[in-house]
Amino acid sequence: MDHPYLMFLGDVADQLAAKTADGIVYWRAEWCVGQVRLDGCAADVRLPDMSIEDGAKLGAKTMVIGVANSGGFLPDHWIESITRALELGMDVASGLHVRLADIEPIRLAAEKHGRSLFDARHPTRTFATGTGVKRTGKRMLAVGTDCSVGKMYTALAVEKEMQARGMKSAFRATGQTGIFIAGDGVSIDAVVADFISGAVEWLSPDVDPDQWDLIEGQGSLFHPAFAGVSLGLLHGAQADALVLCHEPTRQHMRGLPQQPLPDLKECIDLNLATARLTNPNAKFVGVSVNTSHLDEAAAAAYQDKTEQELGLPCVDPHTTGVGRLVDAMD
Amino acid sequence: MDHPYLMFLGDVADQLAAKTADGIVYWRAEWCVGQVRLDGCAADVRLPDMSIEDGAKLGAKTMVIGVANSGGFLPDHWIESITRALELGMDVASGLHVRLADIEPIRLAAEKHGRSLFDARHPTRTFATGTGVKRTGKRMLAVGTDCSVGKMYTALAVEKEMQARGMKSAFRATGQTGIFIAGDGVSIDAVVADFISGAVEWLSPDVDPDQWDLIEGQGSLFHPAFAGVSLGLLHGAQADALVLCHEPTRQHMRGLPQQPLPDLKECIDLNLATARLTNPNAKFVGVSVNTSHLDEAAAAAYQDKTEQELGLPCVDPHTTGVGRLVDAMD
Repeated sequence: MDHPYLMFLGDVADQLAAKTADGIVYWRAEWCVGQVRLDGCAADVRLPDMSIEDGAKLGAKTMVIGVANSGGFLPDHWIESITRALELGMDVASGLHVRLADIEPIRLAAEKHGRSLFDARHPTRTFATGTGVKRTGKRMLAVGTDCSVGKMYTALAVEKEMQARGMKSAFRATGQTGIFIAGDGVSIDAVVADFISGAVEWLSPDVDPDQWDLIEGQGSLFHPAFAGVSLGLLHGAQADALVLCHEPTRQHMRGLPQQPLPDLKECIDLNLATARLTNPNAKFVGVSVNTSHLDEAAAAAYQDKTEQELGLPCVDPHTTGVGRLVDAMD
Repeated sequence: MDHPYLMFLGDVADQLAAKTADGIVYWRAEWCVGQVRLDGCAADVRLPDMSIEDGAKLGAKTMVIGVANSGGFLPDHWIESITRALELGMDVASGLHVRLADIEPIRLAAEKHGRSLFDARHPTRTFATGTGVKRTGKRMLAVGTDCSVGKMYTALAVEKEMQARGMKSAFRATGQTGIFIAGDGVSIDAVVADFISGAVEWLSPDVDPDQWDLIEGQGSLFHPAFAGVSLGLLHGAQADALVLCHEPTRQHMRGLPQQPLPDLKECIDLNLATARLTNPNAKFVGVSVNTSHLDEAAAAAYQDKTEQELGLPCVDPHTTGVGRLVDAMD
C-alpha cells in the first residue's frame, strides 16, 4: 500500500469503531494527510477534515477505510466516496470483513481507473507450508496472555526504540491495523490453517545478520478459539526473543466469560517449551503490560511484583517505554 | 455424500496414488460397488472392474475420485468419465486439490443433470470461532508424534471395536480419506486459521451422554508446519480420552529431514498440558503404534518397552486390535 494515506471514517457511531484509524494515526501520523467524515460521523482521529478532492490535491495515494461498522459490511452510502477516490487516482484499502472487489461498482471503478484495491483482512497470495529451517537475522515475537493485550503496540514501540538507537529493525505485521502501519504484512488468522507457520516464514524471511525483525503476535496459546494461530505463528517466527504482553485488569479471556486468564509464569513456560521446536535458543527478554486501567501507584506496584516473581524486566510501553526490553536484546 | 460409491481410479501410475481409495475400501467395502480404471491404470483396490454404466446399474449414488495424481490436478482425459457419471445420475466426490466446480465442463454437467459435486479437501461452509464451552457426550482424539502415523486408522479401529461391543459411537473425520469413510466431516487443515477449533466444535457437537465421538487427529504439536492445526483441533475436540499414535521406525518429521521426532513422553506431556485448557479431565488411555516395518519379535519388544516406560497400554490396531484402548474408556 502506498502512502500518503487519506483516512476515510464514514459515519460510524463511536470512536471505538475507528480503532484501526486511531492506530494508524498514532504510529504513522506522517503518512496521513487528512480525514474524510460523512454527515453524522461520531469518530475523529484528529487529522485535518477534508474532502476526497482535497486529499487527492494533497497527494494522497491510498484512501484507507480504517473503521469497522457493526457487522463488518460496507454500507451502500459509502460506495460513492470510494469510487470517487478511485476516480481521483487513489488506491483504496479496507480493514472490513467484506472484500472491496466483491462490491460490483467498486470493482468496476477500480478496473476503469486502473487502481488497486487492498483488503487487509484477506491474504491474496498463497504460501508454502512451514519448514522450521533456521533463517538468518534476529527475531522478536510479542506473545500474549490473551487477545488485545498490546502485542502490536509493544512490537511497534520496540521498532521505534531500535530505530532511535540506530539499530537495524523491521516491524512485521500479522493483523489488519499492523498491516496499514507497515504498509504490508499478512493477516495471519485469515490464512488457511495448513499454512500458518509457512506464511510467517514468508513474512519474516532471511534478513541481514544484525537485523531484528519485530513480529506482531496474535491471540494466545491459552485462548480456546485462537491458540492454533498463536502456535503456528510462534513456530514460524523462530523467535530469538519473546516478550509476554498482558493486561493486568482483564477478568477473563476475551469474549469468553467462562475462561480464566493464564498465570504469567505458566504462559511463559508454555510459549518457551513450544518455541524451542523451531528455535532452541528462544528466551523471554521481558514482560510488557498495559497499565492504563490502574492508577500510577498500583501500576508501579504491579510491575515491581511481576519483575520479582519472573526475574524479567516489566515495562509499560506507554508509560516507561521499552528501553529495558531493547537493552536485553543484544 | 451418499453411498454406494463407485471408485474411479483413472490411470494413475502406482498403488500409492490410490491411497484414499484403498482406505475407503478397507473401512467401507460394503459401500463400494466397483472400480473404474482407464487404460494404463496401475492401481487396483480389489473391487470388481466395471464401466461407469455398470456402476450406475448397480445403484452407485456417488462416483469417488479416490486417487491423487502428481500435482493434485485433474487430467483432461478424466473429464469425460466424470461428466458421464453425472449424466447417469451420480454425484461426484473428489479428494484432489483442484475443485471440481472450477472445471467448466464438470460444473456445467452437474448443473444440467441436477447433481452435486463434493470436494473433500475444501470446506464449503463457514464456522464460528471456538468457545471452549463444555459439550455433552464423550470424546476421544487420536494425536500423533508426526503426520501419517495412524491417527485415522486408530480412530476407525476404536469405532469398529465399540460398535462390536454395542457402545454408542461415531467417527468424526477431519481429513479427506476420513471424510469419504464417514460420508461427511471437515478437512480441518483447509479451514481458515481463525476457525480451527470452532470447526471441530461444530464437527463434534453435543451428543448423548453415553456416546463416544472418535475424532481423527491431524499433524502433530511437534511438526513445524502443522502444529497450529493440531493445537486448534485438540482445543476444539475437548477430548476426555487421548491416544498417542506413533510409527517407531520414522527417522525424522515427515517431509523435514532436519527435524527430529519428539520423544513419546514429551509428546504426551505437551498434548496433555494443552488439552487441559478446554478439558481439565483429559487423559491418555494408550499408545497406538504402526509396527508394519518391524518384524514380529521387534514389534512385541517395542510394545512391551513402551508400556513399561509410559505406564499405558500400547497396541497396534492391525495386529493386536484396540480392545485394550476401549477397555480404558469406561
